[in-house]
Amino acid sequence: MKKRGMLIVLSGPSGVGKGTVRKAIFDQDNNDFQYSISMTTRKPRPGEVDGVDYFFVSKEQFEHNIQTGEMLEYAKYVDNYYGTPLNYVNETLDSGKDVFLEIEVNGAMQVRAKCPDGVFVFLTPPDLMELKQRLIHRGTDAMNVINKRIEKAVGEIKMMQNYDYAVVNDKVPNAVEKIKNIIRSERLRVHRVMPDYLGMLGEMKK
Amino acid sequence: MKKRGMLIVLSGPSGVGKGTVRKAIFDQDNNDFQYSISMTTRKPRPGEVDGVDYFFVSKEQFEHNIQTGEMLEYAKYVDNYYGTPLNYVNETLDSGKDVFLEIEVNGAMQVRAKCPDGVFVFLTPPDLMELKQRLIHRGTDAMNVINKRIEKAVGEIKMMQNYDYAVVNDKVPNAVEKIKNIIRSERLRVHRVMPDYLGMLGEMKK
Repeated sequence: MKKRGMLIVLSGPSGVGKGTVRKAIFDQDNNDFQYSISMTTRKPRPGEVDGVDYFFVSKEQFEHNIQTGEMLEYAKYVDNYYGTPLNYVNETLDSGKDVFLEIEVNGAMQVRAKCPDGVFVFLTPPDLMELKQRLIHRGTDAMNVINKRIEKAVGEIKMMQNYDYAVVNDKVPNAVEKIKNIIRSERLRVHRVMPDYLGMLGEMKK
Repeated sequence: MKKRGMLIVLSGPSGVGKGTVRKAIFDQDNNDFQYSISMTTRKPRPGEVDGVDYFFVSKEQFEHNIQTGEMLEYAKYVDNYYGTPLNYVNETLDSGKDVFLEIEVNGAMQVRAKCPDGVFVFLTPPDLMELKQRLIHRGTDAMNVINKRIEKAVGEIKMMQNYDYAVVNDKVPNAVEKIKNIIRSERLRVHRVMPDYLGMLGEMKK
């Protein structure tokens, strides 16, 4: 039996730059993990290719997929569905390859519930930790601006608690390197390599 | 309050090359973690320096340390004690620096019980996974040799289950790179960085 691949989920608050970091990772050609293409009901934009940028499907098709349990996660934004097709992910994992998802925070929590063994990486905005520095100079900002920032920070920190790793998106190449490091290290975790060793022992005792 | 450092424990079966890998790590001068010097009652060998290679102490001193709870872990080999002084580790961790221990498997399990939050890395002999390959050619080895190898493998795999990561010591530079990667990634774990963020929020609300 082939060892199952590992699921890697990159998420983070809206506007943090998840898409940019993911693109930078997959612009490198030395990746030994597979990007999971999302499915959507929105129309392709100029230059977007079906099966490359997204799987473009009809609303009826997408809703049918939801009802038959064929979506690993999904969400609706501005009257369009976005989600991850379960079959594609499962087939890739079954083939022994690791799968990389880049999805919104709500989707990530749906995946966490279904795949607790996945690796969940939270991309944090660089200004989250800089907030303190900024607030030292309170005088320069209006009180309502400060309060909004604090509120946003509290929300982001609460989200982060549901993840395994937090990577600051200060510079895209830094974030890329950290995420690739995390993937390399996670492959060495005992609970992931143990099946290989136990399998070997099992075969030897035959 | 300064954030506490992280404890990293490298261990593995006797003869796997833990000492060689540890030396190779600390021969590099870009480490941002501190090696914890062991304490022993054995006599210094030519060239060994007190406070560098070991803390050399008397048997009475060591036994006093055990009784007063001043050893994080210890063991006795061939009438000599070897162990990790608790104070040195605690002071370094309290200063915010990460501490690296390279110890025997029994010691590692004592540390695990006291510091469950540490990062425990098991160095595996390269022949553990090669065993299967070798046993395919059973004809070339005597049955008792094969059985001894299997028994040894079972023991090593059982030990490994108590660790977080398994690193194969196929080539020393590979093992060094993997261990340093693990340390870098562990620093990004949410449960390790969360105190920073919560501390920042706490201070902001003052």
